[in-house]
Amino acid sequence: MKITINKDILVDALQIITPITDKSSSKPILSNFLLTVEEGAQHEAHFAATDYEIAIQGAFPAQVSAAGSVCISAKMVLEVCREFLSEEIQIESDDQLWVTLSGGAAQLRLPSVEVGLYPQMETAELTYKFKMPGKELKKCIDLTLFAAQTSEARKNLMGVCLSFPEGGLSRWTATDGHRLAQVESTVQPVALDAAPEIIIPRKSLVEMQKVLEKCETDVEMAFDDRSLKLTTESIVLTSRLIEGKFPNVDQVIPKDNDKELMINRERMINALKITSLMSNEKIKPVKLSLEANSMKVESEKAENGESYNQLDIEYQGESMQIGFNARYLLDVLAVASHGENVKLELKGALNPCLIRVPDDASFLSVVMPLRIEW
Amino acid sequence: MKITINKDILVDALQIITPITDKSSSKPILSNFLLTVEEGAQHEAHFAATDYEIAIQGAFPAQVSAAGSVCISAKMVLEVCREFLSEEIQIESDDQLWVTLSGGAAQLRLPSVEVGLYPQMETAELTYKFKMPGKELKKCIDLTLFAAQTSEARKNLMGVCLSFPEGGLSRWTATDGHRLAQVESTVQPVALDAAPEIIIPRKSLVEMQKVLEKCETDVEMAFDDRSLKLTTESIVLTSRLIEGKFPNVDQVIPKDNDKELMINRERMINALKITSLMSNEKIKPVKLSLEANSMKVESEKAENGESYNQLDIEYQGESMQIGFNARYLLDVLAVASHGENVKLELKGALNPCLIRVPDDASFLSVVMPLRIEW
Repeated sequence: MKITINKDILVDALQIITPITDKSSSKPILSNFLLTVEEGAQHEAHFAATDYEIAIQGAFPAQVSAAGSVCISAKMVLEVCREFLSEEIQIESDDQLWVTLSGGAAQLRLPSVEVGLYPQMETAELTYKFKMPGKELKKCIDLTLFAAQTSEARKNLMGVCLSFPEGGLSRWTATDGHRLAQVESTVQPVALDAAPEIIIPRKSLVEMQKVLEKCETDVEMAFDDRSLKLTTESIVLTSRLIEGKFPNVDQVIPKDNDKELMINRERMINALKITSLMSNEKIKPVKLSLEANSMKVESEKAENGESYNQLDIEYQGESMQIGFNARYLLDVLAVASHGENVKLELKGALNPCLIRVPDDASFLSVVMPLRIEW
Repeated sequence: MKITINKDILVDALQIITPITDKSSSKPILSNFLLTVEEGAQHEAHFAATDYEIAIQGAFPAQVSAAGSVCISAKMVLEVCREFLSEEIQIESDDQLWVTLSGGAAQLRLPSVEVGLYPQMETAELTYKFKMPGKELKKCIDLTLFAAQTSEARKNLMGVCLSFPEGGLSRWTATDGHRLAQVESTVQPVALDAAPEIIIPRKSLVEMQKVLEKCETDVEMAFDDRSLKLTTESIVLTSRLIEGKFPNVDQVIPKDNDKELMINRERMINALKITSLMSNEKIKPVKLSLEANSMKVESEKAENGESYNQLDIEYQGESMQIGFNARYLLDVLAVASHGENVKLELKGALNPCLIRVPDDASFLSVVMPLRIEW
């Protein structure tokens, strides 16, 4: 193989695939990626990497002098290419599996691995397909992923559930039992009623966020009950799905919360951050005390200090107090960045709280209260 | 005590003292700092912290409502004050050792400690004194500290030696046995011939760098054979000195290196970084091969790859090869940022290399070569 590639394009591609090649010293072959120029191709090279769970494949423009394929450390090539001062990088392989990278005054020889040793990546046709803008897909992930479970305790909660209610909607739901986030977005085509509900793993969603970072076009999502394929203009990402059944969360979403309050998002974040500083534990208890148009945000009275914030809010309901883990509220407020204010819908001190963003009916989050005794 | 302080001024002061309060869970009292308003003061508060080795004291403007003193966690106050949205912060202590911080909508109560339990800070008069611009002092530290020893193996090398050759000069020298850095700077008054040579510990120099970061005025340095005191407009930093004798380094600085080469600093850094990537060891061997006006920068030929850089240089001497630990060259080049080019003065493959910055005769660095066998 012998090609010349633009440095920035190569670095961008490597930054997307390196995270999935970066771990598992138990399987050193997976620290590599494949760089391939097909026989007859003149202006295009392909790259691919997998960790068995996720596979990422893509193409970039290249001036091809000779076709071929190499299997080489993604991290090493990324680190080296970042340092190159030249705009163009030439990559050439020889019979002894040495790969030479050169650009400007610098030239390097790196060892590579037999291409045949690298795991094959599936390219099965997937039954169900839909399209949506890449930005919108990223928003759906951003608004739900935070609520997915991080511990291995319940595997079926370690991802975001994607389902298709009637009306051409995709519905994205995540929960860890303490809080829940859900967002809906229209997709094309509308007829996905027969499609199964799927659970996309956290790790794949994090990769999808990166792939979608700069995406300005529509993307295609294809899936069946075992795998998912995201196709953007430049990247194809395939991922296994989490097996198991996602719980029915409809009953968790409160329908009759009758107390509504509206609050400035930044100020609420600030008050909760100060409260969180007062606790060294994992749970950061906070008490919200509501009066007409006013809310106190208080920490527990602990040995290491206590805090108190008085915030102006819009609220006409009766006085009440409710406790939360401040971390859970902060997580929702962090992603609900598309509104200046947030709306909290409450019922009683032991009922779940519904959090919404005004002017965005497609998103909701539920946070369970914390029993407080101070 | 009851005072009102500007938030940014308080945060700046806490950022300077927090690093010395931040460790030693073995002596929890040292995680605190002192905040004091003297009886009768109306517009000034004092802060102070020590870890027994270093002490930092300073003053800032404050509106005083009541004099007094508190001893309180520096890290906690810093973290909390950073979050305050108000410009002014009010600090008030009560008889039960609670300290209340308030600003805008936020109010906190933090526990404090009996002021009498905090270690006393020495304020002994020191025999020798000189003045120099704060920026110049920082430059002297920046240009030498990198060469000081980091391991505990030889205590007397774990700092920078300050001595006073004739002619009103201060001389700053650091070495770890593999490389050396030295810079000279004029001081006032010129008559410090009787002053002892002192060794300032690494840790204190790092703190001094921070204190001097924004300093635009002259500063005073006072010392005897046991301690040092740096006085800036707003801060007094005192430090113990390292006991022991600094080696005589005159014989280490080569006097008859007859081969001179001039090279672009940024390009040399780039070539050495690429070379360093080829080695996973602590030592990053690099071979420099000199020809007329050209230099090859090569890594060892190792299993995990090899690199090669061809650089244009100014060189009229005979061809030669010499090896180094690339890390040591990179360290000098990083601080020698006041010149576009650097000058290397060489003799033979086993003789130390002298590195200078053109147009700055006050600085020099020596790097020992590495025996290379490739």
